[in-house]
Amino acid sequence: MSSETPAEPVVEFQTSPERYRHWKLDIDGEVAYLRLDVAEDGGLVPGYELKMNSYDLGVDIELYDASQRLRFEHPEVRAVVVTSGKDRNFCAGANIRMLAQSSHPWKVNFCKFTNETRNGIEDATANSGQTWIAALNGTAAGGGYELALACEQILLIDDNSSSVALPEVPLLGVLPGTGGLTRLTDKRRVRKDRADVFATKSEGLRGKQAVDWRLVDEVIPKRSWDETVAQRAAEAAARSGRPTGEAGIPLAPLRPERTDTEVRYRYVRAELDREQRLVNIVVKGPDGDVPDTVERVHELGADFWPLAMTRELDDLILWLRANELELGTWVIRTLGDVEDALAFERVIEQYSGSPSRPGDWLVNEIRHYFKRVLKRLDVTSRSLIALIEPGSCFAGALLELALACDRQYMLDGTLDEEANEQGDEAQIVLSASNFGTFPMSNGTSRLGSRFYGDDEDTVAKLRQETGRRILAVEALELGLLTDAPDDIDWEDEIRIMLEERASLSPDALTGMEANHRFVGPETMESKIFARLTAWQNWIFTRPNASGPDGALRRYGTGQRPTFDRTRV
Amino acid sequence: MSSETPAEPVVEFQTSPERYRHWKLDIDGEVAYLRLDVAEDGGLVPGYELKMNSYDLGVDIELYDASQRLRFEHPEVRAVVVTSGKDRNFCAGANIRMLAQSSHPWKVNFCKFTNETRNGIEDATANSGQTWIAALNGTAAGGGYELALACEQILLIDDNSSSVALPEVPLLGVLPGTGGLTRLTDKRRVRKDRADVFATKSEGLRGKQAVDWRLVDEVIPKRSWDETVAQRAAEAAARSGRPTGEAGIPLAPLRPERTDTEVRYRYVRAELDREQRLVNIVVKGPDGDVPDTVERVHELGADFWPLAMTRELDDLILWLRANELELGTWVIRTLGDVEDALAFERVIEQYSGSPSRPGDWLVNEIRHYFKRVLKRLDVTSRSLIALIEPGSCFAGALLELALACDRQYMLDGTLDEEANEQGDEAQIVLSASNFGTFPMSNGTSRLGSRFYGDDEDTVAKLRQETGRRILAVEALELGLLTDAPDDIDWEDEIRIMLEERASLSPDALTGMEANHRFVGPETMESKIFARLTAWQNWIFTRPNASGPDGALRRYGTGQRPTFDRTRV
Repeated sequence: MSSETPAEPVVEFQTSPERYRHWKLDIDGEVAYLRLDVAEDGGLVPGYELKMNSYDLGVDIELYDASQRLRFEHPEVRAVVVTSGKDRNFCAGANIRMLAQSSHPWKVNFCKFTNETRNGIEDATANSGQTWIAALNGTAAGGGYELALACEQILLIDDNSSSVALPEVPLLGVLPGTGGLTRLTDKRRVRKDRADVFATKSEGLRGKQAVDWRLVDEVIPKRSWDETVAQRAAEAAARSGRPTGEAGIPLAPLRPERTDTEVRYRYVRAELDREQRLVNIVVKGPDGDVPDTVERVHELGADFWPLAMTRELDDLILWLRANELELGTWVIRTLGDVEDALAFERVIEQYSGSPSRPGDWLVNEIRHYFKRVLKRLDVTSRSLIALIEPGSCFAGALLELALACDRQYMLDGTLDEEANEQGDEAQIVLSASNFGTFPMSNGTSRLGSRFYGDDEDTVAKLRQETGRRILAVEALELGLLTDAPDDIDWEDEIRIMLEERASLSPDALTGMEANHRFVGPETMESKIFARLTAWQNWIFTRPNASGPDGALRRYGTGQRPTFDRTRV
Repeated sequence: MSSETPAEPVVEFQTSPERYRHWKLDIDGEVAYLRLDVAEDGGLVPGYELKMNSYDLGVDIELYDASQRLRFEHPEVRAVVVTSGKDRNFCAGANIRMLAQSSHPWKVNFCKFTNETRNGIEDATANSGQTWIAALNGTAAGGGYELALACEQILLIDDNSSSVALPEVPLLGVLPGTGGLTRLTDKRRVRKDRADVFATKSEGLRGKQAVDWRLVDEVIPKRSWDETVAQRAAEAAARSGRPTGEAGIPLAPLRPERTDTEVRYRYVRAELDREQRLVNIVVKGPDGDVPDTVERVHELGADFWPLAMTRELDDLILWLRANELELGTWVIRTLGDVEDALAFERVIEQYSGSPSRPGDWLVNEIRHYFKRVLKRLDVTSRSLIALIEPGSCFAGALLELALACDRQYMLDGTLDEEANEQGDEAQIVLSASNFGTFPMSNGTSRLGSRFYGDDEDTVAKLRQETGRRILAVEALELGLLTDAPDDIDWEDEIRIMLEERASLSPDALTGMEANHRFVGPETMESKIFARLTAWQNWIFTRPNASGPDGALRRYGTGQRPTFDRTRV
């Protein structure tokens, strides 16, 4: 890992509430209170103190963990109140000293994860009947206000001092880049000239003007604060479609075995090939009996294969993104029985909700969680290559893993001549899961994105192919593969392709993939990772922000930054 | 201007066909042939030779001039064939040595202008009945192929060697950033995994595969090349709705007077305030009689105020963007009679085309040209501030100038106490022009963008206010202004606002404005300036591309680049 002083450590994304140093999670019936009370000395990296309830990646890892546990472990929770454990200070945003000392990749990766967690908060509000409410009992600045923007409602205490602010541009010379600018205009519908005024006003706004400009939904006098917050939470809870009388599913710790060359979970394995600069990832299909009732799914809980596999894959993606920056290509394989994978998927489908039927809450959570993990892949700055070989199980939901990749290669035939019989070849199977169950952040399905702009026939025709085994030659004809080399060419073609990939500029690949993966429309969520994040990445590289005289380094020193005034 | 060696010169955007060094424009009845035959020694900046029909900003300035003259001077032209004057080589794209020696702002500004010209080519095809056809009589690589992608049809000669290619990622470590990646998938509908293969394959593709992958529309044998190209051009011409028997309007040279502190045209004036790092731009309203017939409009030609003003504004924007990089704020005023401005606008409206009526071709061209100039403002990396004062004429189309700005300030009252009578105050007037005549590149009107997500009522209500004078207090209430200070506050408020703006990080402002100006949806055109360009800007700043051992510097030296392998 490239870094500036001090060295950036290996990051661990697994945690649990009893280990939180910065958040306190209290469940009060239908309402969860998540209180931010940052331990100043609890930074993930030496070199800075987390003053003023500011955060670093470690604080956000806990927030992510809490948001996941609320969904799986607490079916009774119907509203989540995010507030501060400190008086007059909700959150000052990302810690500036941390940003100033961090390497460029660290900053970018940190922002990406923070963005994803905030998208997850909106996903919980939209799809899990858990409405997040920001109860700003003190000033929310920068990333603190961006966290509030990810909530469905923003309540601000009226104490004649607490405000909301985005001081990044005026004080730090960078953007409110974890969704702030985009959510201001596209979600909160703050008029764009007002967004311009607000985002250049370091002291922010409060009171009636903050409401008039739609920066907050409500300003609440201090004397009625607790009561009104509780009331808003109760109102949100009353609107929730979450079930009653259900027991949560404990998310037991994942215990990956890690060596220098391998990360191994129960269903997911990654081999780190440092010489080739790639990771070989294998996702294994289910190995147990298919549950025949939804009660059995609940009994299995975190051991239910779709959930276990999804959690492992999520953890692996986060871990590799943060800790293995030079392994630029991820080669994704599956291993298992196609019919078993489809049988588990049918359980999910059977108990999923639909517009007319609420469905089982846990099954619903698992489906949305897999959707979010696929979205993480979509914004992962690594080349993603799917290899579809004999013994694999790229069927339905698992086929989405291949479709999320930049390229898909499938072996035509088998490598073992002896075994070259009907039924041993690699196969893929389309299912209903490939037609909208797991939308990308730009709102399209991965097949819709792949065949963007084709007349509807292409996707409609593919829909007729669901449920049956498709071999390589046919899959190639259907447009589902980049190539289908036969057994004679397979090894050489794949090897050469991977070597070529590893020789290219990592930056150019990141930019190219970020463009190709998002064909067609953009949504607020995808715009945050495109227009906003790409600009922020650019700004982070510029001396005006990150140079020795730049705004990030000079902040808090009493010296003003020195800018190159050239407009680019 | 910050620069690396050699110094980057002052750029002049005015030219004309007899002065072209790189393009040859031949009109053959309904078809124009535009042949690229780059003079190797004709680079705009010393230090590189334009080998292989590669281009720099100077080559693209000529292309832009040609595209404008075709629309205004050649109503008879219904199809434009872009081809090469050199054998077996259409165009090798942007010159690498030029990119390697250019400063970051120069590269970014160059790409922006190139992008805008290509959007203009698509605009001519879509709105002027001039269909552009790329006749690739040799290899089209990088920016050469991107130019082809901006055309409606791409024809490739079949000579067993000519290919199309995007070698930027594999050879140069940067993106095909002037529209290439986005047009591949979103316009040509090349499947995204194929786009990935193509954009990493330096030698490109040719023949049947290039057609199958939709990279070109047709591969044509050498023996029937000229004939088939002529036939495709004739077919496109036959589909055109352009009139017959019309005379063109000569675009006489603009002759701005320039000093170190001023740029002065007939209707547009700019004062360069280097101390405050801003430009005061004044757009003057019409000073002549309103033409009472469309014939009179044609007689006036380039002297017709809307066209004259638009040309001057276009030239000023380009000139300031290229040559005055440290003047970070543009303050935009108008000066003139509101009724006169509206009278001219009514002439435009009266003779404009509509879906049911073709309209006058020249009036149509003027309208689309003003639209394109407004789009240039939208992507200009300067803070744009509209000041609406007594004596101004922000009405209808000119009001779009204010709406394109980041902020709008209007004086409530007058500064001269003596003159403080009814009728002397500043006023604005809405007209039909503000409701869709001049869409932004993301497809929304500027009012639609301003009130994005408001219930339709807001814009519908504003539509009822068209045609009448609106004073400051009411304009503020209608949401059309950022603020409306009175005569006591005006000078201080504006001065402080401009001083504050000038103190902020130029990079952060660029990123913030690029986000706030494009509220809501994205289109292919806006995605090119957002997702694609922002990533390219980032890549350009990275040592892997622009450092001493980066791919741009090492290209052609025989040495391979040295990459920091960290994935970001």
